[in-house]
Amino acid sequence: MNKHIAVINGDGIGPEVTAQSVRVLNAIAEQFGHEFTYTYCLMGADAIDKTGNPLPDETVEGCLNADAILFGAIGHPKYDNDPTAKVRPEQGLLKLRKSLQLFANIRPVSTYAALEHLSPLKAKQLENVDFVIYRELTGGIYFGEKKVAEDYSEASDLCVYTKTEIERISHLAFKAAQQRRKKLTLVDKANVLESSRLWRKVVQEIAPQYSDVVVDFLFVDNAAMQIILNPKQFDVVLTENMFGDIISDEASVISGSLGLLPSASVGAATALFEPIHGSYPQAAGKDIANPTGSILSAAMMLDHFGLHKEAEVVRAGVNWALANGFVTKDIDPVNYYFTSTIGELISDFV
Amino acid sequence: MNKHIAVINGDGIGPEVTAQSVRVLNAIAEQFGHEFTYTYCLMGADAIDKTGNPLPDETVEGCLNADAILFGAIGHPKYDNDPTAKVRPEQGLLKLRKSLQLFANIRPVSTYAALEHLSPLKAKQLENVDFVIYRELTGGIYFGEKKVAEDYSEASDLCVYTKTEIERISHLAFKAAQQRRKKLTLVDKANVLESSRLWRKVVQEIAPQYSDVVVDFLFVDNAAMQIILNPKQFDVVLTENMFGDIISDEASVISGSLGLLPSASVGAATALFEPIHGSYPQAAGKDIANPTGSILSAAMMLDHFGLHKEAEVVRAGVNWALANGFVTKDIDPVNYYFTSTIGELISDFV
Ligand SMILES: CC(C)[C@H](C(=O)O)[C@@H](O)C(=O)O
Ligand SMILES: CC(C)[C@H](C(=O)O)[C@@H](O)C(=O)O
Repeated sequence: MNKHIAVINGDGIGPEVTAQSVRVLNAIAEQFGHEFTYTYCLMGADAIDKTGNPLPDETVEGCLNADAILFGAIGHPKYDNDPTAKVRPEQGLLKLRKSLQLFANIRPVSTYAALEHLSPLKAKQLENVDFVIYRELTGGIYFGEKKVAEDYSEASDLCVYTKTEIERISHLAFKAAQQRRKKLTLVDKANVLESSRLWRKVVQEIAPQYSDVVVDFLFVDNAAMQIILNPKQFDVVLTENMFGDIISDEASVISGSLGLLPSASVGAATALFEPIHGSYPQAAGKDIANPTGSILSAAMMLDHFGLHKEAEVVRAGVNWALANGFVTKDIDPVNYYFTSTIGELISDFV
Repeated sequence: MNKHIAVINGDGIGPEVTAQSVRVLNAIAEQFGHEFTYTYCLMGADAIDKTGNPLPDETVEGCLNADAILFGAIGHPKYDNDPTAKVRPEQGLLKLRKSLQLFANIRPVSTYAALEHLSPLKAKQLENVDFVIYRELTGGIYFGEKKVAEDYSEASDLCVYTKTEIERISHLAFKAAQQRRKKLTLVDKANVLESSRLWRKVVQEIAPQYSDVVVDFLFVDNAAMQIILNPKQFDVVLTENMFGDIISDEASVISGSLGLLPSASVGAATALFEPIHGSYPQAAGKDIANPTGSILSAAMMLDHFGLHKEAEVVRAGVNWALANGFVTKDIDPVNYYFTSTIGELISDFV
């Protein structure tokens, strides 16, 4: 199989973890007789530094011409502490999501026996945790009209959802539930927000088309508790953009390490794969970042290409490394391996 | 001291837990020679059933004429599952917060040795947890303009903040930090939202007036992780309405029981005290709900009246009951006491 992949290293530890995924993808290509080619594109603080623009046109074009996108991380502290900055790295990612219509962010949440001691949760909470969050990614308050008064006396953000936006991701989430344990939980704040009430209405309307799926509803404040109190109750969690941002990051602590978790952002035409961790600038350039979140994102990409056997081999490599103590500093601060060593070991395993 | 208290029982378990607080307040009054008088007011589903209005005018008036308000809980499932309902219990609470300008919701988060086994978090996470969340309560997306298209093709909510709204709660939070461990953490999403950038700007501007307080900033998605991973890092957490709703409920799981946690909502003219738990309709009328969240809210009310010794006695009563196994079913499902028994025991302790 021939596949063309756009690679966006991004900021901070982005380049180093992404390099290991490319290495693993190359090992898979060689092993299974595929051809993967790559175009490197700029985005984020990196792109601002080099071009003044967090998302140069060539990047959008490069992504549109690719079969899928592998992305590292975005963000730099120099922008975070300047609330009046006009250009910001994150604009690049938001604009890319919008341009490519990557409307569904999919984040599996599971646990690893080898990491149990790192989880903040008790063993009881970790039993049988296996759910996936479907976060709407191109609508809501992130993309609604933003205003700030010239004298900074007032600022606002608008949260808008259309029925169509809610429907398309809801169908994906219902279909995922049908392939899983047949339960879908909508997280909203329908007791207060009009947009949440629209979500609830649309999901209630669609539900009869998936009569084998049991639907329930949770207010986001309650969901923030339930994810910690009883995470095994969830199968597919569906939610809007901002709530998804918050609860999927919250859910990511369950496993014991952020460094391990992958995600996929899918649209009608293409899909982007990225680890859920951020750019973590303190660790950049030190060869200590955990590359497995990115490598498992590459595995999700292989699944997306229909290469399920190959994806399984990558996941087996990650599990093998974990089980044998081949881990980065975030997981074992004493006996640890470098980012590049983990990438090499998993490539060799493949 | 003479104090007049407006009591709003509200919905579900509201009446039964509030009754125990009144009992404890009466015991305090007798013991310390105060006179507390009460006016009972309607709000929520209860008020809709009786008057058609979730917040009758007499309730606002009753609250304005009182020195403080003791409130139970709000909400009923029959409204939650009808996204097109025009009247909802929660409107009552939101309107009351707005009418009385209760702009700061204050929620202490701490742990109890006797409940450690109930916490979903490991002992390591629970060490030295002692922080307080200042949630803005009368602005943001809860109160911004709401729209829904007649054909339900689109819906929106506007999140607006003015500089003045941010300033008044920020000053309270900074002052609280000065009385505590001198650290303030602003939780926002300044990398995406214009309103969050205004929060960050205003807090940065105010900070020099409180030069003994160390200020840091966390994006809300990161905060949702840090609260679980390392809660002891927090002292005073300041945030806007919706983020505060989510992270304060998340933080409430740390202690091991929601049933124990109090809150105060303060404004320029008056203050309202309520347990953080909801109306929990499944338990209503069974005399099994935990009244300590409400009783500790009453203790916060005593503090608000300047009756610190009295507040300490109430807290001592709660600690004594907990330490001696006088607990409700949520805490010990086998050897448990009734709501009313706990109220009686704590009153007797006083
Ligand atoms: C970087 C930021 C804009 C982004 C978001 O909030 O969407 C990130 O937190 C994420 O979750 O992918
Ligand atoms: C009932 C609801 C409107 C309320 C809120 O979200 O503010 C509640 O969840 C709370 O946190 O006090």
